[in-house]
Amino acid sequence: MTETTDKDARHNARMARKKAVVDEKIARATREQGVLLVNTGNGKGKSSAGFGLIARALGHGQQVGVVQFIKGRSDTGEEAFWRRQPGVRWHVMGEGFTWETQDRQRDIEKAQAAWAVAREMLADAAIGLVVLDELNIALKYGYLDADTVIADLQARAPMQHAVVTGRGAPPALIDAADTVTEMRPEKHAFAAGIQAMPGMEY
Amino acid sequence: MTETTDKDARHNARMARKKAVVDEKIARATREQGVLLVNTGNGKGKSSAGFGLIARALGHGQQVGVVQFIKGRSDTGEEAFWRRQPGVRWHVMGEGFTWETQDRQRDIEKAQAAWAVAREMLADAAIGLVVLDELNIALKYGYLDADTVIADLQARAPMQHAVVTGRGAPPALIDAADTVTEMRPEKHAFAAGIQAMPGMEY
Repeated sequence: MTETTDKDARHNARMARKKAVVDEKIARATREQGVLLVNTGNGKGKSSAGFGLIARALGHGQQVGVVQFIKGRSDTGEEAFWRRQPGVRWHVMGEGFTWETQDRQRDIEKAQAAWAVAREMLADAAIGLVVLDELNIALKYGYLDADTVIADLQARAPMQHAVVTGRGAPPALIDAADTVTEMRPEKHAFAAGIQAMPGMEY
Repeated sequence: MTETTDKDARHNARMARKKAVVDEKIARATREQGVLLVNTGNGKGKSSAGFGLIARALGHGQQVGVVQFIKGRSDTGEEAFWRRQPGVRWHVMGEGFTWETQDRQRDIEKAQAAWAVAREMLADAAIGLVVLDELNIALKYGYLDADTVIADLQARAPMQHAVVTGRGAPPALIDAADTVTEMRPEKHAFAAGIQAMPGMEY
């Protein structure tokens, strides 16, 4: 047996074993339900992964609702693009980042109003996916009550997916979630002096 | 001073300090260039964050190229959705996951052909964003030569963004990248018996 065909044979045997493991896992996962996904951590990709699911949902003919709780700039590519897609309802809490406003009482009022919109989406079984972008920040600053938010998430339409993004997800939300990813920054272009670029950071 | 206004005052002062820090960081990041982003790790969100950037790029009027190196199923929402968007060129290497084919030589040929398409996109300055989905898997199995791939990535059009996704990014690629996120799984619905749901996992 030559070296190449030996390598091929070992690879093919390894893949056959892997296939058996994957197939068995798939056979065990049989429940169908909406998934509560939390994207947290300090790395890049929490919001873009959340917004990436909009394409999946629309591709399957689902309706989508988005609430942006914190928003740094008004010229983002994702807002421009997703707002013009049929089947997407896009709501912005507005007022920019909290370190721009520096007005806690106004932030609280805006967050409460945004949550009222989110709750309406969560109750609507016609919506397949609800993206609650940067909700964790509103929870972290105490603009919204975590218990109320979690109760509303758990009471949502049973087949509806919900995605919560933002740094510092509260432990109770992580407990309540089905899938949780921590986005960890290994390195970031910004620290190397590259400014926020359109198509990448916004 | 009441308790509420005291809390507000402390919050507002904290936000003012934070704003100063953020503003200074922004002032220091002045270089404009395309960013090489790597999404790796074992958690959910690597591909969806990559595909989420397509919306950002299209929203800014950029053209987008996508090559999917490994693909588990043919009915994904993202492929259905993105293929019908003007400005997106979507190429699939095909043949499914490697543990389905169990034929290393065929996988290598397909991967080489897919890389030829990717290289063409990377050389095209009219394309603002190139997403190389699951490229790390093709590198991990040795279907493609990492040095060649990295050289082609570094030789790409200067203002073009490139995104590489997949578990187990090779160290040399991490070194070459501008931004690297490790998606870490804190928990996953699949392990709790929930099957892969449309709009969430595909």
